[in-house]
Amino acid sequence: MKKNIIIGQSGGPTAAINASLSGVIRKAMQSDEIGEIYGALNGIEGLLNRRIINLRNSIKNIDDCDRLAATPAMALGSCRYKMPSMPHEAYDKIADIFEEYNIGYFFYIGGNDSMDTVLQMSNYFKSKNADIKCIGIPKTIDNDLPVTDHTPGFGSAAKYIATSIAELALDSGVYDMFNVIVAEIMGRNAGWLAASSVLARDTGCGAPQLIYLPEVPFDTNKFIEKVKSFSNENKPLIIAVSEGIKNENGEYLSAAGASVDGFGHTALSGTGKYLSDLIKEKIGCKVRHIEFSVLQRAAGHIASDTDMKEAVLIGENAINAALNGKTGVMMIFKRIKMLEKASDTPYKIEIDTVPIEQCANKEKTVPLDWIIDGCDVSEEMVEYLRPLINGKVNTYEKDGLSSYIFLDKTV
Amino acid sequence: MKKNIIIGQSGGPTAAINASLSGVIRKAMQSDEIGEIYGALNGIEGLLNRRIINLRNSIKNIDDCDRLAATPAMALGSCRYKMPSMPHEAYDKIADIFEEYNIGYFFYIGGNDSMDTVLQMSNYFKSKNADIKCIGIPKTIDNDLPVTDHTPGFGSAAKYIATSIAELALDSGVYDMFNVIVAEIMGRNAGWLAASSVLARDTGCGAPQLIYLPEVPFDTNKFIEKVKSFSNENKPLIIAVSEGIKNENGEYLSAAGASVDGFGHTALSGTGKYLSDLIKEKIGCKVRHIEFSVLQRAAGHIASDTDMKEAVLIGENAINAALNGKTGVMMIFKRIKMLEKASDTPYKIEIDTVPIEQCANKEKTVPLDWIIDGCDVSEEMVEYLRPLINGKVNTYEKDGLSSYIFLDKTV
Repeated sequence: MKKNIIIGQSGGPTAAINASLSGVIRKAMQSDEIGEIYGALNGIEGLLNRRIINLRNSIKNIDDCDRLAATPAMALGSCRYKMPSMPHEAYDKIADIFEEYNIGYFFYIGGNDSMDTVLQMSNYFKSKNADIKCIGIPKTIDNDLPVTDHTPGFGSAAKYIATSIAELALDSGVYDMFNVIVAEIMGRNAGWLAASSVLARDTGCGAPQLIYLPEVPFDTNKFIEKVKSFSNENKPLIIAVSEGIKNENGEYLSAAGASVDGFGHTALSGTGKYLSDLIKEKIGCKVRHIEFSVLQRAAGHIASDTDMKEAVLIGENAINAALNGKTGVMMIFKRIKMLEKASDTPYKIEIDTVPIEQCANKEKTVPLDWIIDGCDVSEEMVEYLRPLINGKVNTYEKDGLSSYIFLDKTV
Repeated sequence: MKKNIIIGQSGGPTAAINASLSGVIRKAMQSDEIGEIYGALNGIEGLLNRRIINLRNSIKNIDDCDRLAATPAMALGSCRYKMPSMPHEAYDKIADIFEEYNIGYFFYIGGNDSMDTVLQMSNYFKSKNADIKCIGIPKTIDNDLPVTDHTPGFGSAAKYIATSIAELALDSGVYDMFNVIVAEIMGRNAGWLAASSVLARDTGCGAPQLIYLPEVPFDTNKFIEKVKSFSNENKPLIIAVSEGIKNENGEYLSAAGASVDGFGHTALSGTGKYLSDLIKEKIGCKVRHIEFSVLQRAAGHIASDTDMKEAVLIGENAINAALNGKTGVMMIFKRIKMLEKASDTPYKIEIDTVPIEQCANKEKTVPLDWIIDGCDVSEEMVEYLRPLINGKVNTYEKDGLSSYIFLDKTV
């Protein structure tokens, strides 16, 4: 008997998460073993509230799948709901809903926290001897999920960051004078995104000259000395910095820069603003801070084609894994190493599964030996990163703008 | 006898200014009447300091021209130098340099201030009966030059803004709850760029819901009431705002939001931050402010193909105008109106010249009847804007990043 599938998305938006969703839908459409393709609106929270849509109403063919893949953010919506510990009535409620909708397969696309939800659900259904396969599909711009070589969404955010850093370098170089740009990049604990700014150097722009990651304690005095060492050059100094850098006591720098706004409220300044104020105070040169903010996580217009293709592929493979009887697993990328180096030419990945316990609630940070002198990254890091941003994505343009697909969310 | 040409760039960077430079070079290369093609580094200031390069050393063929066109910011560098009033020795100095370099034609690519330089220079050479043609080529993301239908560089910045607003709307819509994004867009006196955010609505994202331009005094109470009127909807409210909006007394809002930083210095907050703090104070909802900052003016990766092609064309036509004996003129776009509407299908422009007095030191702001209720723009504005962002530009990618050209600046 045919079983139905249900898919949810959770966590922060990325340029590639809908590509994974489209991969799941695409493969499910081709399978004789799968009946309806349901989507849970706003993740597990929407599922618990029976906010369930039939995705075949909105995604009717391969062309729709392609447009869905090219639509950034999260077509099904997100949630911040964390599943309670078992036993809990929430699990029984989900079991009832799954029975009602004849669900045989549950797919959840998300980061570390979302993988915990998949772990709990698969444990619950195993304990009930219920034949419901639960598969986690990784997604995060932060690239901080363990085991997998990298995460879908990261390459596109990295491409946005490297491109923007290069454009900032060109822009701030037009007056042939020393000036500083502090670019604040997402990443509270893992510095992968800030590290990816290094790729801008491949354009020949020379930026960023300095890169600071949260993996290494930030030393204010050393930082100021470094900045000063560039001040005799008649060109811009571009500094890429993770929002999450901390001093030697583990305190966020953004907290140190707390400021009072026009209404008298004390507010945490951003890390970029804090460093920019610091440079103004200690050196007095022209300095500007730029926050890439949420622009970096949903920049579908400059997504990496490699990232988008892999995101579709990992979604398709999730269907294969489920139909092959896997459950309680997360899909992963394995990089095939032809040579002894971290990254190889040609770049090649395989898709596999691992028990989800290995990924849920765990964080993968940048290896310390890939960080140089606390203010740069190694060539090994560059070789790891370079293939991930490759290729121009196909955006569907209409009147000069991307043509998105919006799901019919009528429940 | 063959004469040489010299080109300079001035003012703020854009994604298209090197496209105009490449147009001048391309056409000059094809002309039998033109000998060497010189570039003045850092505009008129570099010219006065004899910082002159031979552009044929770096740009050898059409392929180099294409890559130059696709390189954002300013290949020759910029300056903020304003020519003194005549009589002044600076003009005699330039005349000497022009004689030494056998210059017959001077091209200056810039905004209102740069056009004043062209005006002064052409007046000087006329007064000396010297046969040196001076041509102004418009460039500004602000679109605030008079007479011309629009300016090269504006369409690409508009495309970046509309695309980013749409991506922000998708990103902030994933939780199906009311939240506010205030996007601060460049434009001190002219609201063209903030107005161009309206094009994001063409994607179906619904944003921006509110648009504030500096042409109309900003009313804080009306603003808060407007924002409140959206607060019952479970979706994001995206507000596009010109950095230059002012209250009824003509004071910048950014001044009203002056804040004290972590080092005790008082600093002007940005307009976006001020409005975001205001919304937090008066309404208390989730609110975030985003500054597109300098990213919006050199975003070559998402340049408008229409803008880039026109920028090349206006550069090429500048050579034609000079060879036809024009001087003291600025190149302009004229939109061919087939019907009675502001913009027509198909969109068509012609290139012409006007006496530069009509443009120098003058500013074109948004017509008041294109602004609706102080917080939106009219359909006429949309029709004016839409063709300007059309078409995907060809970027030359290598390893996933744009392949720029850098000029040999050895003098």
